[in-house]
Amino acid sequence: MTPAARQAVEDAEIIIGYKTYLDLIASLIDEKKIMSSGMRQEVDRCAKAVDLAAAGKKVAIICSGDPGIYAMAGLAFEVLRAKAAEGDMDELPEIIVVPGIPALSASASRLGAPLMHDFAAVSLSDLLTPWEVIEKRLDAAASADFVIAIYNPKSKGRPDRIDRARDILLRHKSGSTPVGLVRGATRENEKIVITDLDNMLDHEIDMQSTVIVGNSQTFVWNDNMVTPRGYSGKYELGAK
Amino acid sequence: MTPAARQAVEDAEIIIGYKTYLDLIASLIDEKKIMSSGMRQEVDRCAKAVDLAAAGKKVAIICSGDPGIYAMAGLAFEVLRAKAAEGDMDELPEIIVVPGIPALSASASRLGAPLMHDFAAVSLSDLLTPWEVIEKRLDAAASADFVIAIYNPKSKGRPDRIDRARDILLRHKSGSTPVGLVRGATRENEKIVITDLDNMLDHEIDMQSTVIVGNSQTFVWNDNMVTPRGYSGKYELGAK
Repeated sequence: MTPAARQAVEDAEIIIGYKTYLDLIASLIDEKKIMSSGMRQEVDRCAKAVDLAAAGKKVAIICSGDPGIYAMAGLAFEVLRAKAAEGDMDELPEIIVVPGIPALSASASRLGAPLMHDFAAVSLSDLLTPWEVIEKRLDAAASADFVIAIYNPKSKGRPDRIDRARDILLRHKSGSTPVGLVRGATRENEKIVITDLDNMLDHEIDMQSTVIVGNSQTFVWNDNMVTPRGYSGKYELGAK
Repeated sequence: MTPAARQAVEDAEIIIGYKTYLDLIASLIDEKKIMSSGMRQEVDRCAKAVDLAAAGKKVAIICSGDPGIYAMAGLAFEVLRAKAAEGDMDELPEIIVVPGIPALSASASRLGAPLMHDFAAVSLSDLLTPWEVIEKRLDAAASADFVIAIYNPKSKGRPDRIDRARDILLRHKSGSTPVGLVRGATRENEKIVITDLDNMLDHEIDMQSTVIVGNSQTFVWNDNMVTPRGYSGKYELGAK
């Protein structure tokens, strides 16, 4: 958590967030007016936050990782725009996005350095995105040798998405391509596995996991997954 | 800067980094043994750090953004592996990667919320990567409607790379696709422009800029660049 994020939470009069994330910063927010809600009510949470902000309150919406990556920042803008369009808002409240460490950065740091070269982030959640679009993205990213960070790899309702994603990646990537599986990066329940495309499905992957699949140059050395900065032949490492 | 990064710098006996970044944390490191070096000597810097660590010193290599994204973390592993292979190292020093806020997150936060959906990061630097690979990645990412974050968009030696990149994106993306240009995000010299693919080249872009190009759903509202969480029709925003 950065000092800027901490300051924003301390300055807020009302704090809104999913309970799990509120618990993580419980020590900071004892005396604040906390509103928590369940995971599936993101739109409600944002609507409440926007209403309170429009009424003059300083409101903090909190989430894990970076609020600007698959999280709450964009939704806050969407909800504010929709409410403003309804026309019953005297003055638009200002939205300030305080960046955080994305799950892909936290996960990468625990694996070694797999994101050192061009990468793509793809969520396998098809709640809001047609599955065909997701498949097309996996195929395109794999075909151009991107490192790929997969968010939301599995859920109860769609346990086979990650199997299907792996099949698509194998069209272009070798089965020996390193794969890192990270759950709860830097938290108490952290779990880290380094495997490869051939064997990744033998390990536990759930909705909270981040899956990072290497490019053609990624290697595993001494239990670290590392993607070089470029392609061999372009530079000499041994050179002094 | 996170508390963890601050702690790592405070714990270090020797700090190595490019002068610009050392200056940014000057207040933290007055009494430390600082070694700085010019921008082009990343390999030298890492080699020095690894040698000192192998000799028992606690060394911090610092850089801006996230060390795991186009920065120093992977190089430290590469150099350590190369030195270990030479065989003259009694004990391998441990490398700990402390994640930071990536430039793409900091830049996105200042633009609004452009990275809310699947995105790709592509560097236009062809020092270590064949230009054909970079072109292929731009084309693949654009064809699959990724939001695209472009690193190293311009340099003195290769001023026309960003022009060429834009041409490739226009094969698949509309000229009215929102584009955010961010320089020095959250720093004193910060400069932010929101434009579109048609007009982006009318604005100053340099090697320190991050360029974020939207997907087909990205919109500009009230001076904010926002990518929705999904595709319209998949969910109702107004719904309570």
